[in-house]
Amino acid sequence: MLITPAVKKILGYYESDNPGVKTNLARLLMHGKLAGTGNLVILPVDQGFEHGPGRSYAANPSAYDPHYHFQMAVDGGLSAYAAPLGWLEAGADTFAGAVPTILKMNSSNSLLSKAVAPNQAVTASIDDALRLGCSAIGFTIYPGSDDSLSMFEDIRELAHEAKSCGLAVIIWSYARGSMTKEGETALDVIAYGAHMAALLGAHVIKVKLPTAHLEMPEAKHQYLTHHVKIDTLVDRVRHVKDCCFNGRRMVVFSGGETKDIQDVLADAKAIRAGGGNGSIIGRNCFQRPHAEAMNLLEELTKIYA
Amino acid sequence: MLITPAVKKILGYYESDNPGVKTNLARLLMHGKLAGTGNLVILPVDQGFEHGPGRSYAANPSAYDPHYHFQMAVDGGLSAYAAPLGWLEAGADTFAGAVPTILKMNSSNSLLSKAVAPNQAVTASIDDALRLGCSAIGFTIYPGSDDSLSMFEDIRELAHEAKSCGLAVIIWSYARGSMTKEGETALDVIAYGAHMAALLGAHVIKVKLPTAHLEMPEAKHQYLTHHVKIDTLVDRVRHVKDCCFNGRRMVVFSGGETKDIQDVLADAKAIRAGGGNGSIIGRNCFQRPHAEAMNLLEELTKIYA
Amino acid sequence: MLITPAVKKILGYYESDNPGVKTNLARLLMHGKLAGTGNLVILPVDQGFEHGPGRSYAANPSAYDPHYHFQMAVDGGLSAYAAPLGWLEAGADTFAGAVPTILKMNSSNSLLSKAVAPNQAVTASIDDALRLGCSAIGFTIYPGSDDSLSMFEDIRELAHEAKSCGLAVIIWSYARGSMTKEGETALDVIAYGAHMAALLGAHVIKVKLPTAHLEMPEAKHQYLTHHVKIDTLVDRVRHVKDCCFNGRRMVVFSGGETKDIQDVLADAKAIRAGGGNGSIIGRNCFQRPHAEAMNLLEELTKIYA
Amino acid sequence: MLITPAVKKILGYYESDNPGVKTNLARLLMHGKLAGTGNLVILPVDQGFEHGPGRSYAANPSAYDPHYHFQMAVDGGLSAYAAPLGWLEAGADTFAGAVPTILKMNSSNSLLSKAVAPNQAVTASIDDALRLGCSAIGFTIYPGSDDSLSMFEDIRELAHEAKSCGLAVIIWSYARGSMTKEGETALDVIAYGAHMAALLGAHVIKVKLPTAHLEMPEAKHQYLTHHVKIDTLVDRVRHVKDCCFNGRRMVVFSGGETKDIQDVLADAKAIRAGGGNGSIIGRNCFQRPHAEAMNLLEELTKIYA
Amino acid sequence: MLITPAVKKILGYYESDNPGVKTNLARLLMHGKLAGTGNLVILPVDQGFEHGPGRSYAANPSAYDPHYHFQMAVDGGLSAYAAPLGWLEAGADTFAGAVPTILKMNSSNSLLSKAVAPNQAVTASIDDALRLGCSAIGFTIYPGSDDSLSMFEDIRELAHEAKSCGLAVIIWSYARGSMTKEGETALDVIAYGAHMAALLGAHVIKVKLPTAHLEMPEAKHQYLTHHVKIDTLVDRVRHVKDCCFNGRRMVVFSGGETKDIQDVLADAKAIRAGGGNGSIIGRNCFQRPHAEAMNLLEELTKIYA
Repeated sequence: MLITPAVKKILGYYESDNPGVKTNLARLLMHGKLAGTGNLVILPVDQGFEHGPGRSYAANPSAYDPHYHFQMAVDGGLSAYAAPLGWLEAGADTFAGAVPTILKMNSSNSLLSKAVAPNQAVTASIDDALRLGCSAIGFTIYPGSDDSLSMFEDIRELAHEAKSCGLAVIIWSYARGSMTKEGETALDVIAYGAHMAALLGAHVIKVKLPTAHLEMPEAKHQYLTHHVKIDTLVDRVRHVKDCCFNGRRMVVFSGGETKDIQDVLADAKAIRAGGGNGSIIGRNCFQRPHAEAMNLLEELTKIYA
Repeated sequence: MLITPAVKKILGYYESDNPGVKTNLARLLMHGKLAGTGNLVILPVDQGFEHGPGRSYAANPSAYDPHYHFQMAVDGGLSAYAAPLGWLEAGADTFAGAVPTILKMNSSNSLLSKAVAPNQAVTASIDDALRLGCSAIGFTIYPGSDDSLSMFEDIRELAHEAKSCGLAVIIWSYARGSMTKEGETALDVIAYGAHMAALLGAHVIKVKLPTAHLEMPEAKHQYLTHHVKIDTLVDRVRHVKDCCFNGRRMVVFSGGETKDIQDVLADAKAIRAGGGNGSIIGRNCFQRPHAEAMNLLEELTKIYA
Repeated sequence: MLITPAVKKILGYYESDNPGVKTNLARLLMHGKLAGTGNLVILPVDQGFEHGPGRSYAANPSAYDPHYHFQMAVDGGLSAYAAPLGWLEAGADTFAGAVPTILKMNSSNSLLSKAVAPNQAVTASIDDALRLGCSAIGFTIYPGSDDSLSMFEDIRELAHEAKSCGLAVIIWSYARGSMTKEGETALDVIAYGAHMAALLGAHVIKVKLPTAHLEMPEAKHQYLTHHVKIDTLVDRVRHVKDCCFNGRRMVVFSGGETKDIQDVLADAKAIRAGGGNGSIIGRNCFQRPHAEAMNLLEELTKIYA
Repeated sequence: MLITPAVKKILGYYESDNPGVKTNLARLLMHGKLAGTGNLVILPVDQGFEHGPGRSYAANPSAYDPHYHFQMAVDGGLSAYAAPLGWLEAGADTFAGAVPTILKMNSSNSLLSKAVAPNQAVTASIDDALRLGCSAIGFTIYPGSDDSLSMFEDIRELAHEAKSCGLAVIIWSYARGSMTKEGETALDVIAYGAHMAALLGAHVIKVKLPTAHLEMPEAKHQYLTHHVKIDTLVDRVRHVKDCCFNGRRMVVFSGGETKDIQDVLADAKAIRAGGGNGSIIGRNCFQRPHAEAMNLLEELTKIYA
Repeated sequence: MLITPAVKKILGYYESDNPGVKTNLARLLMHGKLAGTGNLVILPVDQGFEHGPGRSYAANPSAYDPHYHFQMAVDGGLSAYAAPLGWLEAGADTFAGAVPTILKMNSSNSLLSKAVAPNQAVTASIDDALRLGCSAIGFTIYPGSDDSLSMFEDIRELAHEAKSCGLAVIIWSYARGSMTKEGETALDVIAYGAHMAALLGAHVIKVKLPTAHLEMPEAKHQYLTHHVKIDTLVDRVRHVKDCCFNGRRMVVFSGGETKDIQDVLADAKAIRAGGGNGSIIGRNCFQRPHAEAMNLLEELTKIYA
């Protein structure tokens, strides 16, 4: 399949990157059912690290097997599959070339005491990404957390090395710590976290879907004064895209906890309508029975196609 | 245009620097409408990192696009354009050679909790500055803050590497933490912060315009005993220049929050009269409608020409 | 398209390689019209370095433009495009992701005096391959030449570095120097050169089509004593494949000088019948008028499909 | 002065290069009297190394002073000044920012015995280029010489390091050794040398003006068979540009020994008419009396303006 | 003693060097009897390496002791003392601070077979120069020898490292190999060798006194055509100074073999009259009885004072 004008346009936004980075971005954008559309559906499986295996996989014991997820990404025609080091190592040979992979470079876990959390450990290297054949690295930042500045410094170094090797950089940006729980998904906070990820040099930014809540008083004042449209999810997705360099950076949205299929699909429709570049869908996928998950992916990719 | 005597004289002040650093200082001093005057007007756009995108750009949504600012720096005939990594990457190819650029090496943000702030993360490297074609690096220090000593150590390393590669070093010096809010812009504090920036090896120093307030008792005693002139803004700008090695280092002043155009221009006249080397103007520029901003830049550069 | 059993089987032969290498081999094997067949048609354009630009491109002046060849590889649905550093740099951004690329790491030229030739200079680095988004490196050895041992040592280092970064290694093996002109394409010599390339760690080996001539007396004695079948081109291709680890390594054959289209296609049929993995076709492609070349590629890929 | 469309178009040809390299190419293309035209006139002063100081400068003793040449490049409004390490060091501070400089990285000399010549020593490093504020490095290759392959390997390493630091790469390509004296400037040989420089990754290529002689039999056959136009100097310049990636790489031509002013200007007119990007003029400049040289530069830049 | 205007002027010529290099040049120029004059008399003792100890020191057995030479340099009020590694190590502690020292970085010897000579081994490192408290490094090149290009590459690396550490660089330039024996001291050859040393980045250049012979036909033609004055030694010294960047680099002349005291002094008068910066005097010093040598140094320094 030839590179489409939609993909060509997106690649052009990454004007300072070398052809290696653009080649890997093209691999994400030209693979699976969404190839050529400019949209992405990515399967991330780092819940085992984040929440523990039993909590993550007991609902669907097939998911204890790393191959299960690779196979789902392949069979679902997804754009890419993201996972931590060991989980990728357990299937990278069997599935070499079958689906673009993203090495998740840092990981949090639920055993951390409150004194330390929220934070993550860097658990992989760029060398690992190259030897495993990955197209991109993934990295989580927690804007607002007490460790956020050192997380920014970690991704600075990793992103620099990744880009020089032609790897794309995807940043998961989740606000934590300094705001209320409701504030973590407030529109101004989500947009701010996405913007910082872009400023840190991300090619693709992953955030949660924002609510209409506005957390920071100075920001709220500006949003209200200048009548920023925030009422519908479509409005809010569009605002997040605006905040990612006026749409020059790709943004994908995560679904969060397992929920009703129709809700997942409704979210996707809003993401698409607002100009978002797709979904990162994990728990909503592997915590369901296999057939149900495949149906969901089928419906989801149709929305973005 | 030939290097002017005014620029030649300034370059001569940087006597221990290699020709590469002087070449890049000359690039700043010989570009745009102020070329050859010895004065600078610099457009810095790091408000998105500092305050978030909505709060910064909702007033003028064109400003969500990184190209908007590059274009304004070019069209306004400004001396240079300063921004964080991702923001520069998004336009550095399109605007290669069109305006000298300054890579902002560290960045603060408004999501940081009070327990951590004020502090900044180092978010770029000297390699980035070279591959993006920058003429200088920019770095913020917060004298008085609990993290100020480690910020000094960060800039020591970055400045050493930058200078060996021929890059100029610009330090943003903002006192924070140990003084009253009024003290942050007190003349003795501003002058002290500027002097420390010069001592840390800055080629160009950026500070806020000082008030006539004197914060530190011992300093106040000396100022009063020896009749240091501090009444007018012109006096105070001159004092800051004196404190920057008797004028051997360039000092530019920031305008702070958006305000009346006449106030911005009045400040500039005082800066020039006091021997300051120009203005760094960000929010006062991009938070206005485009035509108004261009008019402001037109008037501003006339003052310094 | 899912990885086919044919491709899966081939990938399995590279059992000591990391998933990165297999991913890049899969990229070559899963791209273009031959995707999934286990066969490859590669367009190499290093004739400008080898023979000079006028001699190479005067017959078809469109070919002076590096984009012409990228476009032909894309439009022809070929498996990959191979070229030296500068030639790849001139199109790698425009064609990022459009076709797998192979960076030719060393280059010979026709201006070299007899005292020095045959030899090649290493003209690219593994870093270049990564930043340009290549899937493999290409390297020429001249078994039999006075410089052959140092060429072997060069490829040892480059192949080691390439594999650790997940890049595939393709060795062009052309006997030169110690044998008669006729001996350069003798079956025993070609098979020997191919075997050494495999022993040096090549994933894919490129040789010329062998004649029925046998050059080395001791080898000839064994071939005749044991009735090795060498009469038909199919026999000889099969023998070369046998000599490449009993078929565990891919072998592609070059066409050499421009010749009749029917001859090119007849060669390809024999290559396929003998178990060869495809053709490397350069001059026979770009030294013809565009339409004729496209027809040839159409016919050629049909044979291997 | 704003980047012109002509310069923008040329910068676009260097599609795989980082913004730093493009910035430095823009500096060469936007400086002096030819700023914005897409053409270059470069003053190279390495004759002292090549032929010795007395032989080079006795005709015009002012030229013993390194400042003389810097000043001429500035006063003549030239695009850039190229010289070896010590010669640049002797003026780089005085003339910082006054004219883009090119550090000549290797140097030959006339004391070398025939057993060693033609060859060059690498006499500077990329660090030197950065600390001296250079915009580009210059490197000479001697295609056809017995040391040509190691020269290719030297420039590979230097060019890779230069590009990663944002420096442009200019290759002087002079065929030597394996051909007749007449052959050194034969069209096929010059075009071949220029093409190899481009393949080695040069951004700008410098060659001598070619004669209508054709040296290599196989090339001659192709030129004649396909009716390549070679009769006029304009034809030949155009052919050399064609051989530099169909015009995607800049080519400047050297004047060689001191000759009549009208001849120098006639050459320049042909270079321009054939699409060449300008002249490198050394001896024809500094071996004349100052006023005469300035007049020549005046006329020369008018032709390219 | 204050830095004199004469020394200040000379330091100004080294405009691209850092203050460390200038500090060490000032140490040479502000020490001993010639302090402040801009002239230097340097005692080099590397004859033991060059010619063997018996041949060098049997005439004055006190000279077997390294301390003898340090003491002579101190007592004679010389500008500096130059020696190879082990010879300096044997006295550097006792004489720490007593006289500026120069670490001779490479050394030849008389046991070398003709097949290898002339060449030198690098026998010390920049680390050695720093730990021994040296002010400068010394390095010999043999322009015209078959190994000259690799000597140039060695000094490039050493000079770069030395300058970055603030050490001055002195190059001994002796033509060898490609010319007649008479040619080794021909004016055009000496001037060429001195010029190349300057181009390689030497701060001080040491050559032999030139004769009126002209060796190279093309150079001779230029010297005669343009009436270069070469008849007297004064003329010739002046020409060599001209060839060292119009006098911007210091040049000292060696005396060569032991000869009559009056001849040594007559040479010195001519060197001074021609604008040379002094003498390097070894054998003429230590191969004489102590008192005689001290008298010679007394007379010699008077001439340059």
